[in-house]
Amino acid sequence: MIRRLAIIGIGLIGGSLALALKRAGLTEQVVGAGRGQANLALALANGVIDALAESPEAAAVGADVVVLAVPVGGMPALMARIAPVMHDDMVLTDVGSTKQDVVAAARTALGVRVGQFVPAHPIAGAEASGVAAAHADLFRGKDVILTPLPENPDAAVARVRAMWQGCGARVETMTPLEHDRVFAAVSHLPHLAAFALMDELAGRGNSALYFRHAGSGFRDFTRIAGSHPEMWRDIALANREAVVAELDAYIDRLAHIRDLIATGDGDALMAALSRASQARQQWAQDKLKTPR
Amino acid sequence: MIRRLAIIGIGLIGGSLALALKRAGLTEQVVGAGRGQANLALALANGVIDALAESPEAAAVGADVVVLAVPVGGMPALMARIAPVMHDDMVLTDVGSTKQDVVAAARTALGVRVGQFVPAHPIAGAEASGVAAAHADLFRGKDVILTPLPENPDAAVARVRAMWQGCGARVETMTPLEHDRVFAAVSHLPHLAAFALMDELAGRGNSALYFRHAGSGFRDFTRIAGSHPEMWRDIALANREAVVAELDAYIDRLAHIRDLIATGDGDALMAALSRASQARQQWAQDKLKTPR
Repeated sequence: MIRRLAIIGIGLIGGSLALALKRAGLTEQVVGAGRGQANLALALANGVIDALAESPEAAAVGADVVVLAVPVGGMPALMARIAPVMHDDMVLTDVGSTKQDVVAAARTALGVRVGQFVPAHPIAGAEASGVAAAHADLFRGKDVILTPLPENPDAAVARVRAMWQGCGARVETMTPLEHDRVFAAVSHLPHLAAFALMDELAGRGNSALYFRHAGSGFRDFTRIAGSHPEMWRDIALANREAVVAELDAYIDRLAHIRDLIATGDGDALMAALSRASQARQQWAQDKLKTPR
Repeated sequence: MIRRLAIIGIGLIGGSLALALKRAGLTEQVVGAGRGQANLALALANGVIDALAESPEAAAVGADVVVLAVPVGGMPALMARIAPVMHDDMVLTDVGSTKQDVVAAARTALGVRVGQFVPAHPIAGAEASGVAAAHADLFRGKDVILTPLPENPDAAVARVRAMWQGCGARVETMTPLEHDRVFAAVSHLPHLAAFALMDELAGRGNSALYFRHAGSGFRDFTRIAGSHPEMWRDIALANREAVVAELDAYIDRLAHIRDLIATGDGDALMAALSRASQARQQWAQDKLKTPR
């Protein structure tokens, strides 16, 4: 049971966490803080949060658990504001989509209290954002990755694990490095690739002609290009090394396929497309067995 | 009313066309031909077709309308077999995803009868294939693009238009060149880009680690990579010039975004992602008004 839960950033993720924990009866009080007064007012009016603090540090004072649910670019400044009000029994955690940079920020901002910070990443995005899109089932059956620090006491990790399990999520642990490499490939790259296609077409003088004829394949391929630009700018910059490596690998692969088409090498093209198609069908089958 | 309809290739598209026209009462008899004996037997057993011909030309003999519903790479050979059995009142049409190459094949194979060929492209794909996936509603509310030839009599175009409207589709006309350029950008490129990501990840020694953590963004981005490899090889080669141009533009755009990340140019990155996100949200809104 979390007596006083502070959530900084009451958007899709922060708001859904509050709703899920309340419904599960796992928290007595949720105090929120963040930017965007209209969004915060809505969170309070809808009962997503019980109280609105006027600053992140005011929300954190006296809290058992503090969750940082803001774009990863905002973490360093936020941690610096929270550090002075941390008490010995407080656990600090986050929902950032990258982990090495957040861990580095925690080491800088928290000093000897870094062991009280348990890094976490719930794998539950949506192109919608803001508290209006929040719902108590967002994390049900989804993965949450913890990347614990050597300094974390077991009890602190257990507390964050229990919080996410209480939302219906499956909790796994990885190292921050492994986390960042894996998600650069399966999440950050596809997002940037979808953004890139929309940006390319939107910049054309006759973009309306293209968009009018775009169908269901285009719809699904580009869905994640509707995501929050600030969040994805922050992720790309925070996970720069792995993201650039993945973009380079992807550009090379596209250039290879481009050359096969340009030279009319139907056999090699067929082999590449067959491998891809088979892998996609196998992936979908595997996911059906363990839906996330 | 089509007295005798011949469909060559009883897959998702050919099978769904047969089912839709039968349900609408727009055809008396559907004769099918194609490859894949198990698939054809299923089509006959399920009543998708009324009769099975032992060759494309046997199916076409005496037909009012002949629909070529095979991958575009198979069109030239198929047209050469149909040409000798064409009579003056027969209309030939296709469902190919590219049009300039199919028109060129028709000019070569059909000679003076080319005016009887009305090129068409129903915009209704699915990653499923085969007659088992066919259903009478596949074309409802979808677009069908006709790219009529100067040689086409109005009556021939009207006949093909009425056939697709009878399936619930919206029929538009474009030139073959315009068609191929537009669909290279909004369909062929996204398919190849999705194939490329799956191929890239599947080729890694630790691909299972990546695939295990791939979530809903990855799922949607790669859905079309489960498509039929032969069909997409044919499309890429048939529409080579436009597809290579689109791949080049896309690779350039990705490289630009890669450079913004590598150099840490957050402002320019934010501007690009914002343009893309806004364009995607606008596109989705426009589509809601005129769902396809």
